[in-house]
Amino acid sequence: MEDEVSVLFMPSGLRGQVPVGTTVLQAAQRLGVDLESICGGQGKCRKCQVLPQEGEFSKHGIVSRADHLSELTATELHHQSRNRLKGARRLGCNARILGDLVVDVPEESQQHKQHIAKAVTAYDIQVQPALHLYTVTLPEPDMHAPISDKRRLQQALVSEHELPLMDCEMSQLRLLQPALAKAGRQVTVAVYQFQQIIAVWPGVKREVYGLAVDLGSTTIAAQLCNLFTGEVVATADTMNPQIRFGEDLMSRVSYVMMNEGGDAAMTQVVREAFNQLAKRAAKSAGIALEDILDMTVVANPIMHHLFLGIDPTPLGGAPFTLATDQTQVMRAAELDIHLHPEARVCTLPCIAGHIGADTAGVILSERPDLADEYVLLVDVGTNAEIVLGNRNRLLAASSPTGPAFEGAQITSGQRAAPGAIERVRIDPETLEPRFRVIGCEAWSDDPEFAEKSARVGVSGICGSGIIEVVAEMYLSGVIDRDGVIGPVAGKDSDRIVQDGRTWSYVLQAGERPIRITQNDVRAIQLAKAALHAGTRLLIDRMGIEKVDRIGFAGAFGSHIDVKYAMVLGLIPDCNLDKVGSVGNAAGTGARIALLNFPSRLEIGEILPKVEKVETAIEPKFQEYFIEAMAIPHKTDAYEELAKVVNFPAPKPKAEQSGDEGRKRRSRRRRPA
Amino acid sequence: MEDEVSVLFMPSGLRGQVPVGTTVLQAAQRLGVDLESICGGQGKCRKCQVLPQEGEFSKHGIVSRADHLSELTATELHHQSRNRLKGARRLGCNARILGDLVVDVPEESQQHKQHIAKAVTAYDIQVQPALHLYTVTLPEPDMHAPISDKRRLQQALVSEHELPLMDCEMSQLRLLQPALAKAGRQVTVAVYQFQQIIAVWPGVKREVYGLAVDLGSTTIAAQLCNLFTGEVVATADTMNPQIRFGEDLMSRVSYVMMNEGGDAAMTQVVREAFNQLAKRAAKSAGIALEDILDMTVVANPIMHHLFLGIDPTPLGGAPFTLATDQTQVMRAAELDIHLHPEARVCTLPCIAGHIGADTAGVILSERPDLADEYVLLVDVGTNAEIVLGNRNRLLAASSPTGPAFEGAQITSGQRAAPGAIERVRIDPETLEPRFRVIGCEAWSDDPEFAEKSARVGVSGICGSGIIEVVAEMYLSGVIDRDGVIGPVAGKDSDRIVQDGRTWSYVLQAGERPIRITQNDVRAIQLAKAALHAGTRLLIDRMGIEKVDRIGFAGAFGSHIDVKYAMVLGLIPDCNLDKVGSVGNAAGTGARIALLNFPSRLEIGEILPKVEKVETAIEPKFQEYFIEAMAIPHKTDAYEELAKVVNFPAPKPKAEQSGDEGRKRRSRRRRPA
Repeated sequence: MEDEVSVLFMPSGLRGQVPVGTTVLQAAQRLGVDLESICGGQGKCRKCQVLPQEGEFSKHGIVSRADHLSELTATELHHQSRNRLKGARRLGCNARILGDLVVDVPEESQQHKQHIAKAVTAYDIQVQPALHLYTVTLPEPDMHAPISDKRRLQQALVSEHELPLMDCEMSQLRLLQPALAKAGRQVTVAVYQFQQIIAVWPGVKREVYGLAVDLGSTTIAAQLCNLFTGEVVATADTMNPQIRFGEDLMSRVSYVMMNEGGDAAMTQVVREAFNQLAKRAAKSAGIALEDILDMTVVANPIMHHLFLGIDPTPLGGAPFTLATDQTQVMRAAELDIHLHPEARVCTLPCIAGHIGADTAGVILSERPDLADEYVLLVDVGTNAEIVLGNRNRLLAASSPTGPAFEGAQITSGQRAAPGAIERVRIDPETLEPRFRVIGCEAWSDDPEFAEKSARVGVSGICGSGIIEVVAEMYLSGVIDRDGVIGPVAGKDSDRIVQDGRTWSYVLQAGERPIRITQNDVRAIQLAKAALHAGTRLLIDRMGIEKVDRIGFAGAFGSHIDVKYAMVLGLIPDCNLDKVGSVGNAAGTGARIALLNFPSRLEIGEILPKVEKVETAIEPKFQEYFIEAMAIPHKTDAYEELAKVVNFPAPKPKAEQSGDEGRKRRSRRRRPA
Repeated sequence: MEDEVSVLFMPSGLRGQVPVGTTVLQAAQRLGVDLESICGGQGKCRKCQVLPQEGEFSKHGIVSRADHLSELTATELHHQSRNRLKGARRLGCNARILGDLVVDVPEESQQHKQHIAKAVTAYDIQVQPALHLYTVTLPEPDMHAPISDKRRLQQALVSEHELPLMDCEMSQLRLLQPALAKAGRQVTVAVYQFQQIIAVWPGVKREVYGLAVDLGSTTIAAQLCNLFTGEVVATADTMNPQIRFGEDLMSRVSYVMMNEGGDAAMTQVVREAFNQLAKRAAKSAGIALEDILDMTVVANPIMHHLFLGIDPTPLGGAPFTLATDQTQVMRAAELDIHLHPEARVCTLPCIAGHIGADTAGVILSERPDLADEYVLLVDVGTNAEIVLGNRNRLLAASSPTGPAFEGAQITSGQRAAPGAIERVRIDPETLEPRFRVIGCEAWSDDPEFAEKSARVGVSGICGSGIIEVVAEMYLSGVIDRDGVIGPVAGKDSDRIVQDGRTWSYVLQAGERPIRITQNDVRAIQLAKAALHAGTRLLIDRMGIEKVDRIGFAGAFGSHIDVKYAMVLGLIPDCNLDKVGSVGNAAGTGARIALLNFPSRLEIGEILPKVEKVETAIEPKFQEYFIEAMAIPHKTDAYEELAKVVNFPAPKPKAEQSGDEGRKRRSRRRRPA
């Protein structure tokens, strides 16, 4: 057998054993590490640059040294001489691994196939999994006391581990006698919920794993965790392959309604995606798929039902009745998910027809039910799920924001992916914009921007970029409070152009122009009005004036600058330092449920007490919605905010035909 | 749709609906009724004769009249004229069914493909099944109270039926909303053990069924029962297809040991046989396979383990350790048994490595644990399972009788099948035998025997025939107490012939002679000595002198004449009127477990208290075994018996070389 060494890639944390002499690029590919390579390992493209680390990584049992890589090759020396390979960097395709190693993959060497923001959110979870391992050595069989090996196993678990008498899954009972024979009558069993033996191994077994999956309409993200340490040992993400049946939820439900067997087809592809994710995560972590014994899933109601194989048609129209609003536990195999043969799957409960298990995950992560203060939690997608409350009372609603916040139905909109504009600033004096795209650190006014962004390009604008550009357009006077675009008084800018009967703002000119049209601003207004009306409804219902804390969950929430969200009136008044992203709270909720079994019971107790507010049948919703179309919806709030963050006040606009009598405001400089 | 009428075949009890105009033979074939036909329905072979019944069969809702059959055809009239079709008999292939009908299939018209004695044994069972049906109508969904349909269902079961809050299998949850939509929000659910919803149907559902299966090494017999009335609506039997891997249990275990995957292959074929049986039974009863929701199985340990997919190798040698000695409940689907998707299978517990769930079934059927008197239960196969005890104490053992009682390893031995000699009498004066074969009512001394037995022939001798012939040989002096065959003093009979160094008794001369050799008698002596030694061991262990009642279970037990069994010393002393067949007690036990759920718990409580006596390690077993070789093992007992049943005393035998000094006895005439 060839000698193997340990290699750990950072920042992904992916690790594994590779044979001595493997190139770093080969190792990365084998372990599923995101390391760019265009020339196919010929040493030409220089994309696969890595930085070897020196030091003792005792947590991982690795002593890493630069000389654990082969010496610099002629190719690398050549690139160094031309300053294309700086410092201690190496070409992944040239450097061969000779000893244990920790390797940094710099940002620019990462492939960025898909910018998936459902990263692991740090969270302190009390590890108390649904299953435990027990190792016992059974007495030899005795013809004078002819009892079965199953009964001997039960007796050992009772006497040595004080467990109740419990049954054993038949598939595992089949393994018992061979396991006993193999390991001198020593076996390890996995006991689920202290009541059922679901796995049997010969000898000693120490570690088993679980998957926490956040199943979104667009993205599926899995966290593979050690069930006893709680450590996230690998993550894996993929696009939801159901997209081919319809981009958004409603089009997928329509697909089911229109196509016999459409639900089964969508169920099948999403389960296949789960299997692929599980395989990749297991491979990344260097564990066997069969060592995964538990899984938790959060999802919106339609994804949730489709995953379980339940026809979501009733969720496609009023009265939006869920088949189940409870925690469901079943065997992974029943869902065609291939982990350990007796692995369990637990789906967190959905709350109502529009409020899913993902929101249950957010609640589990943020625990508003334990808070003294009034907490508002917002998870923005095609619908915005909103939770408001504290230890005394919880309300939940879903507001039909539409997909504008996700970049859909926006002229130059796109998903959050490399090349998408995510940050925008407009100079209030010149009205010139500058922006940053995903996958490039430089701003567009950086002289080297063209070179630096060459790889990703500038392909469109994503949700957080849209929020910023519309807010900046407002702050610079390009749009007024009603959202109307037009020339700014005293400014002569070719950024504001006539576009048929309305005006547009040109974010990027040239061959592939990116412009914000009047319709785009309207779409954002509609979306933010829906979100605002929903939160206002809940605040009303709660009978309070103001919320104490606001948490944005999810990818959108992680990216947007909350100041801009407040400028546009997406969220209600709140101290700005009490507003922030809560990360991928849904995914964190899935991980909490995975690692802390009691939380599954708790969420089952919390949810029935949550009061569901159905926006569609609330008469006030429409009223609030219309009121919330303007920007900002409340002048006072804006003024307050402007003071706090030292925003400029919105600038006066040139008088436009049909848009006369607009008030002028004094300008304030915005800090750079 | 064509008109259909009801037809019920007796004695099988198989019934169903057939279109008007169907011939009786077609109907029989469709319903799985055992009706002979050789000429393929041409009216030539006259094998398919049936007798229509007249009368009101109110239990079955049938008013049967002879004129519900078409008029006699020319073919039938022709056969009548030649006296080949007697009385009211009809040819099944000619008579067409015009109205509801009950049809007798005379013994000689039955095919007797396989003489399977595992018939339904009448037994009064308190019907209390493991599952119940509940029909509820759920309120319409309400957007103001957005709860899931699952929760509504739970609430209805709690409030209307006082059931606990219970979960629903995912496969059935998928059916809930479509069922509600289909039947005006009325559904029927099946609840298993008052704790789990395992089936959902739209609207009202009234009847579901269960299968009780007796899985033997040779035969598999299924009883399909209505779970609420307890009625056996169909039975089906088949050979155990594992026979191709080995005739007896040990050869099958050897097959597993010698062939990689041998256990899986045997598991697969036996499950396929289960599926075929279930299909046939469902078809016979005219029900859908999906209406079968529960199943119980009894089997010996090796069959039991193979059915469950457990490698039986540890049962092939000391210490004969069972993988499980408990009741196992799982989904039929897990065992590749295709009934309702959530149908359950319950295997009764095995007692020890040689004492199976079939014995558990015998205990459940006979309940020796409730008796005041000492009950001895014997189930004879390749091994004899023996249970002895009463309400205070139960003992069980398995005794290695070998296959002689099943006709194996006997010169002219065969299984109990048409053509096998099952009854034998030897004239003590002439030493001439007369016998009867399975499938023919006439004795061999009937002048018409040749004609009457022509169809089945005389092919060999089965277990019960062997017992009788050996006992009769003893009673007529052909063998002595040590089992030695030889000429009888004063008798000149060509039935006793020299056969090398020993003698044989010729039961049938001619081209296909059937003779009982010295080795055959030895085989029976060994078998009966083993059985006797086993029972004596248990009687010893129990510390009693005499048992109060003896029950023979199984096919062998149903066929043998207990007098002969006692003459040979198969069974210990007991009042003859307290000895009898208990029918297919194992199969009855399976049916009890199926129909009376509490009995499954009871057997689980009884069995651990049963003291297992391992004959292989009991020093006294060998001693008793040797002592029990002689016939009868106790002269006094025989004398008692002879008085009671008016047997002749054993006759004196001619002095043979090496067999001198034999006592002579006075003869008594045996009644005809």
